[in-house]
Amino acid sequence: MSNNPSFVLRSIEDVAYEERPVPESVSDTEVLVAIKKTGICGSDVHYYVHGKIGDFIVKDPMVLGHESAGVITKVGAKVKHVKVGDKVAVEPGSTCRICDSCKSGRYNLCPDIVFAATPPYDGTLARYYRVLGDLTYPLPEHLTLEDGAMMEPLSVGVHSVSNLGNFKFGQSIAVFGCGPVGLLCMAVAKALGARRIIAADIVPSRLEFAKSYVGAEPYRPLSPNKDEAKLDYSKRNAEKMKKTLGIEDRGANAIDLVIDASGAEVSIQTALYVVGTGGTMVQVGMGNPNVQIDLSQLMTKEVAYKGSFRYTHGDYPLAISLVAQGKIDLKPLVTHRYNFEDAIAAFKATRAGKSDDGKDNLSTFNWFSS
Amino acid sequence: MSNNPSFVLRSIEDVAYEERPVPESVSDTEVLVAIKKTGICGSDVHYYVHGKIGDFIVKDPMVLGHESAGVITKVGAKVKHVKVGDKVAVEPGSTCRICDSCKSGRYNLCPDIVFAATPPYDGTLARYYRVLGDLTYPLPEHLTLEDGAMMEPLSVGVHSVSNLGNFKFGQSIAVFGCGPVGLLCMAVAKALGARRIIAADIVPSRLEFAKSYVGAEPYRPLSPNKDEAKLDYSKRNAEKMKKTLGIEDRGANAIDLVIDASGAEVSIQTALYVVGTGGTMVQVGMGNPNVQIDLSQLMTKEVAYKGSFRYTHGDYPLAISLVAQGKIDLKPLVTHRYNFEDAIAAFKATRAGKSDDGKDNLSTFNWFSS
Amino acid sequence: MSNNPSFVLRSIEDVAYEERPVPESVSDTEVLVAIKKTGICGSDVHYYVHGKIGDFIVKDPMVLGHESAGVITKVGAKVKHVKVGDKVAVEPGSTCRICDSCKSGRYNLCPDIVFAATPPYDGTLARYYRVLGDLTYPLPEHLTLEDGAMMEPLSVGVHSVSNLGNFKFGQSIAVFGCGPVGLLCMAVAKALGARRIIAADIVPSRLEFAKSYVGAEPYRPLSPNKDEAKLDYSKRNAEKMKKTLGIEDRGANAIDLVIDASGAEVSIQTALYVVGTGGTMVQVGMGNPNVQIDLSQLMTKEVAYKGSFRYTHGDYPLAISLVAQGKIDLKPLVTHRYNFEDAIAAFKATRAGKSDDGKDNLSTFNWFSS
Amino acid sequence: MSNNPSFVLRSIEDVAYEERPVPESVSDTEVLVAIKKTGICGSDVHYYVHGKIGDFIVKDPMVLGHESAGVITKVGAKVKHVKVGDKVAVEPGSTCRICDSCKSGRYNLCPDIVFAATPPYDGTLARYYRVLGDLTYPLPEHLTLEDGAMMEPLSVGVHSVSNLGNFKFGQSIAVFGCGPVGLLCMAVAKALGARRIIAADIVPSRLEFAKSYVGAEPYRPLSPNKDEAKLDYSKRNAEKMKKTLGIEDRGANAIDLVIDASGAEVSIQTALYVVGTGGTMVQVGMGNPNVQIDLSQLMTKEVAYKGSFRYTHGDYPLAISLVAQGKIDLKPLVTHRYNFEDAIAAFKATRAGKSDDGKDNLSTFNWFSS
Repeated sequence: MSNNPSFVLRSIEDVAYEERPVPESVSDTEVLVAIKKTGICGSDVHYYVHGKIGDFIVKDPMVLGHESAGVITKVGAKVKHVKVGDKVAVEPGSTCRICDSCKSGRYNLCPDIVFAATPPYDGTLARYYRVLGDLTYPLPEHLTLEDGAMMEPLSVGVHSVSNLGNFKFGQSIAVFGCGPVGLLCMAVAKALGARRIIAADIVPSRLEFAKSYVGAEPYRPLSPNKDEAKLDYSKRNAEKMKKTLGIEDRGANAIDLVIDASGAEVSIQTALYVVGTGGTMVQVGMGNPNVQIDLSQLMTKEVAYKGSFRYTHGDYPLAISLVAQGKIDLKPLVTHRYNFEDAIAAFKATRAGKSDDGKDNLSTFNWFSS
Repeated sequence: MSNNPSFVLRSIEDVAYEERPVPESVSDTEVLVAIKKTGICGSDVHYYVHGKIGDFIVKDPMVLGHESAGVITKVGAKVKHVKVGDKVAVEPGSTCRICDSCKSGRYNLCPDIVFAATPPYDGTLARYYRVLGDLTYPLPEHLTLEDGAMMEPLSVGVHSVSNLGNFKFGQSIAVFGCGPVGLLCMAVAKALGARRIIAADIVPSRLEFAKSYVGAEPYRPLSPNKDEAKLDYSKRNAEKMKKTLGIEDRGANAIDLVIDASGAEVSIQTALYVVGTGGTMVQVGMGNPNVQIDLSQLMTKEVAYKGSFRYTHGDYPLAISLVAQGKIDLKPLVTHRYNFEDAIAAFKATRAGKSDDGKDNLSTFNWFSS
Repeated sequence: MSNNPSFVLRSIEDVAYEERPVPESVSDTEVLVAIKKTGICGSDVHYYVHGKIGDFIVKDPMVLGHESAGVITKVGAKVKHVKVGDKVAVEPGSTCRICDSCKSGRYNLCPDIVFAATPPYDGTLARYYRVLGDLTYPLPEHLTLEDGAMMEPLSVGVHSVSNLGNFKFGQSIAVFGCGPVGLLCMAVAKALGARRIIAADIVPSRLEFAKSYVGAEPYRPLSPNKDEAKLDYSKRNAEKMKKTLGIEDRGANAIDLVIDASGAEVSIQTALYVVGTGGTMVQVGMGNPNVQIDLSQLMTKEVAYKGSFRYTHGDYPLAISLVAQGKIDLKPLVTHRYNFEDAIAAFKATRAGKSDDGKDNLSTFNWFSS
Repeated sequence: MSNNPSFVLRSIEDVAYEERPVPESVSDTEVLVAIKKTGICGSDVHYYVHGKIGDFIVKDPMVLGHESAGVITKVGAKVKHVKVGDKVAVEPGSTCRICDSCKSGRYNLCPDIVFAATPPYDGTLARYYRVLGDLTYPLPEHLTLEDGAMMEPLSVGVHSVSNLGNFKFGQSIAVFGCGPVGLLCMAVAKALGARRIIAADIVPSRLEFAKSYVGAEPYRPLSPNKDEAKLDYSKRNAEKMKKTLGIEDRGANAIDLVIDASGAEVSIQTALYVVGTGGTMVQVGMGNPNVQIDLSQLMTKEVAYKGSFRYTHGDYPLAISLVAQGKIDLKPLVTHRYNFEDAIAAFKATRAGKSDDGKDNLSTFNWFSS
C-alpha cells in the first residue's frame, strides 16, 4: 500500500480501504503521526454494525479507529515536547480550548469536540494521522507501541477510578462487568493501592481472568427467579454477594467505590445495593439507558452516582505513568493481532467476542508493518 | 401542666400527653433545654399516620418532634459556649464521635446516631430536653425562637445546596417541589448568590409562593398524555421547560444544580434532563423509591447525582449565619401556630396540608407559653 | 485624534501618543474592541517610573494599560457570545491553551502568557484593541463601562478571596492594606457573606474609607519601638490587634482568611500571627520580597500560606456576577477621571496617590469620548 | 519489674523508673494496652534535655514516650473493633470530639488535645497504657509490634505528603532533611507512585541511606560563601540543584511537592526556589522559627506553603495500609534496640544521633520482654 491508506466505513457493514492523501503540512501546533498500532473498541464495532451510537450517525464515509499509537514524522514549529521519530500515544479528541469545560479542566465535556471516528470526524485507522501536538504523549523507551495504543481505554479506566471515583490507597472497589474497560478499572485500582478488588460478571472465564490479572475476588451473580421483579432480584443478589464476600456497609469491609462497566440494569441495581455508606458509584458501561434504581440506597447512604464520559485533563499522563512504573501490565489484555490489511477480520473477531479458533477476545489490534 | 409533659405517639394515630420526669442533672458535656418552639415536619406526621418510615418502626411509645428551639436551663461543667438563659437552636441528632463518618465530618452517616423522634428515641415535643451541649447553637439576639426551630429544616436545605451541591455565587439552580424543603433550598441558593432560581411544582399556589418568596421563575409541568411512558413524558416535559425558560445545556443559561425535593418519579426524570452538562443533581425528597432514570443523561453530561441525608458538620452554623445576616427570612414560612396543648390539631393540619380554614400549610409550629 | 492613537511608554518617564494602525481584520476566534475606559494600575505606574517590574523590563516602546472595557466593533466567525455593539470587559492575558496550567484551569501560570502592558506586549491604552473573543465578557445592561474596566482589579480580589482563599459565607476575614486591591478583597468577602471584615492600614483616611465602604472594623497598627526587632514588633502588634478587636485563635471569633495586600514585612508578620488555627493566608501585595516570618505560627496552626498571581478561570465571571447582582458597588472606588488626551496627568495622579487638589486617589480612569 | 513501671522525666536530664498503679478498669469506650515497643522521638529527647518545647513546659514528673504499640489486655463494653490479645498501634493524642476541628476531620488542631508525653500528660513508656479504643489500630498478622510503634512517625509523613501535600501517582517530590521524618516522607511518596524522589542533606551517609532506601536522587547542598547573605546562598544553591538534577519550573521535570523536614533556614529558602510553579511546600521540620523567605517565589509560582502539625483523621489507617501492602518497609529504619530497663542509654543514643559503637541512629526502640 502506498500513500495514506485508510479503513473507511461507508455504510452499515460496508467497509473498504481508501487511498487518502497524506497531509502535506502541519500547522505550528500540530504533528503528523505515522500510525503503527490501533486497538479496536466496542464503539468502532458498534458503528460498523449499527451505523450510529445514540445521536451520532454515520452519514458520510468515515475512517474508523481511535485507539492508536505511532511515530512522529512531522512537528509543528511550536511543538516542543516531541520530535521526529518519537513513539507517542495519540489522544483522539481535539477540543475548542475556549469553552468553560475546556478552561476548567473538563474538556471531555466540550460541545465542539472533534473525536476520532465519531461522526462526522475521521478516525485513526490510516497510515498517517494529523493531530494537535499536545494530544501526543511520548512513550518511555521501555513501553511498546501496543502499550501506547492501549492508553486510550486505560484512560477511560483512569478517568472513572481516579478522576471521578477519587480512589485512594487502601480503599476497596467492586467492578461490575469484566470486559476490557472493567478490567482496566481494576488494574488502575490495584495500581493505586486497592485493599480489595471485587469483580462481578456472569461469564466464568472472565472472572477467572480478573482473578489472575489483578487478584480480584470473583462474584458470579445469582440467576433471577421466574417472575421476579428486577429490583427484587438485584436486592437478593446483592445480599448474597455481600454475605459471600464479607462486604459490609461501613468500616474496613465496606466498598468505597463501585464501577458499573456492564451497562446492564440488574448490575447497576446490584451495584447501588453493594456500595458502602458515603461511597461513590461510577457509571462507565452503557446498555439500555432506561434503568430503574432504588433511590433509598442513594439517599440513606448518601451515595454520589456519577456518569463517566471518556477522559480529560490528566488522565492520559496518569495512564502512561501507571504503565511506565510497571504498576499495570497491558500485555495480557492484547489477545488478538491482525495486520492492517486484515482489518475486516479484526472487526469480526471483536464483534464476535472471540476469533475463529474460539479464543476469547479482550482487545484486538491492527498494525502496520513499517 | 407541670413537670415534663411530653407529646407521645403510642401507636398509629394514637397520641397522648404523658408526664415524664424532668431530667434532674446533666453530665459535664450536656445541657438542659426548656423547649419553646417546635416545628412539625412531614416525618413526624408520617410516623403519626403510618407508625414507621422504611425500616424505622415505632414499637414503643415515643415522644414526637425534632425541630426545636428553647432556652438553656442547665449547663454541664465543660460546656462553655452557652449559659443559662441563652436562646438556642437544638440539633436533634447525637452521634458516636468515634466512627469514620463522625471523625471525617460526615456524622450524619454515623450508624449509631440517636435522632430525636426516630424510633426508638424520644423527640423534643416536651417541656424539657436534655442534649449534648455542642448540639445547641446560641441564637443572635435579633433572631426568634421560631427562627431557631426552623434551623432544622433550613439545615436540610443548606446540606443539599451548599454542602452536597457545592453551590457557588452566580450559579443557577432548579428546584423540583415547592414544599418547605424545596423553598428552603431556594432560599439558600438565593442567599448564596444564585443567578437564576427555577421552581417547578404542579400546584399553582406553591409556584406563586416561590415566586414571591425568592423571586423564583415558576414552571408548571405539562400534563402527561394517556398511555405515555413516564420517561417519554418527562423528556417532553423537560424540553418544554427548557424552551419556556430559555434553559440550555451549557454556558450562562445552563442549570448548575438541580434539587429534587418532590420524590416524584417524573420530577426526578425531568430534573435529570434539565440539569446542565457537568452539573450536579441532589435528591432530597423521598417518595416511592423505585425510580427509572435515563442513564444517557447521567453519562453524556457527566452528572453527579447525590443522595442527601439530613445534615452534618457546618450545616447548622451556616443556616444560622444566613438568617442572622438577614439573607434568609424564615417568617413567611411559618403559616400556622398552635399551643402545645393543641398538638393534635397541629398534626392534623400538617397532615392535611392546610388548616380548617383552608389556609395552605407550609410549616406548623407548637409552642409553650413560658 | 484619528486612526488608532496609543499611549506608549518609550523609556523611563518618557511617554507619548503614537498613531498605530487599526487592526484591519480579526481571525475567526478574535474580536476587535473599541476601548472606552481604562483604569490605571500600580503596575502601569511602576513601568512608567522604573521601566521594569522584576525580570520584566521595557526594552522597546510599549503601549500601557490593561484594565479596560469597550465596545465590540468586529467579531470573528467562530465567536458566538458577543456581537458588534456589545459592551465588554476585556481580560488582558492571552494564554497558550496547551500547557498543563492552561488545561487544568490555572491559566494564570501559563509560561507563554501574553499579558497586556507586560513587556514586550502592548497594552490597551489605545483606541482599538484586538483580543481573543473568549477574553471579552459582555456586561449586563445596567453596568457601566467603568464597571467593566474595574473587573480587572476586582478579579484580583476574587482570585485571592474566593479562588485561593476559598472564602465561605459566614467566615471572617482580615485584610492588611487598604489600597484598591485590599478594598476589593474586602468587597468580595462582604458579597460572599463575611461575618466580620477587619481592615488594617497605617493611613487613617484609608481605614475610614474601608469602614464606610464595606463596614470594615478598622485597625491602625502600633508604632514600632526603637531598636525593636521586626518580629517582636509584629507579635506585639498582633496581640494588640487581637485584644482590641476580640480576635481569638479558634471558634466564632477566629479569622478564617487573612489577605496581605500591603507587601510590607511587618504586615505580613502580623497577618500570620492573626490568622486563626487551620486558616488560610493569601499574599497578594508585593513589596520587598525578602520577608522574615515566624514559622511556628505556620506549623502549630497548620496555616496554608498561598501566593496569589493575577486571576484565572472563573474569576472574571464571578467578578461580573458580584457587581451585576448589586453585591459590590464599584463606583466609590473611581476617584479621578481623565480624558485619554490627559493620560500623563492621570499617571502623575496615580503615582502621587492623590491629584493636584489633594484628593486621595484610589483608582484613576482614562476615557475616550466616543 | 512488677506492677506498672514507668519511665518518668522529673526535671531536666533527671529521669527515673517509677512504679505507677496499673489502671484497674477501663470505661466503655477505652482499652488497656500492654505496651511492647516504644520508639524514641526527637521530641522525647528534647523534653529530656531542655525540659520544654516552646510553650509546653515540664513542671511535674511526666512519663515519656508516645510512639508505641502493644497488646490489648482489657476492652471497654462499646469497643468492637479490637479484642484482648490483639496487636495494636496506639495513636497518642486524645481529642475533645466536640470542637470544630474535631468535627471537621482536623482533630490535630483540637485545643484540648491530650497528647502522650506532652506536658502535663503522661506518655506511653510504661508497662500499661489506658487509651480510648478508637485510638488503637489492629495490626495485620504479618506486621510486627515494631512496625506498629513506627506508625506514629510514619503518620507524620503520611500527613505531610498525602493529606496536606495531596501527593498523586506520577508526581515528583523533593525532601530536605534525611532524618527519620524526611525518610518516611520519601517512603510515603514512593509508595504512592512518585515519579522522582529527590533527597537533600548535608550528611553524605544520610544521602546514601535515602538512595538505598527509596531510590532517592541525592543532592548535597553547596557550601555557603563567606559573607554571603543567606537568601543569596540559597538562590545559588537552588540553581545548582536544579541544574545538577535537571529540575525545571514546569512540566515533567518540575517538582510538585517539596517537604522541608530539616527546619534549617537555608533549606527552607532553597526549597521555595526549587518547588515548581503551582506546587506545594510542606513544612514539617522545626528549627529556629524565624526564617526569611523570598516571597516573589511564593507569588509568581502561586505556591501553597503549608505548616504540618502531627496527623489527623485517616493518617494512621493509611500508614498501616501502606505497610500492610508491603509498599513501605519500616525495618531498615530501626537501627537500635534497647530493653526497657536501658531506656537511659536509649535516650543518650538518640540524643547523640549514634550509639557508643558509632553506628548512626535513625530510630531507637525500647521494648518490654513479655
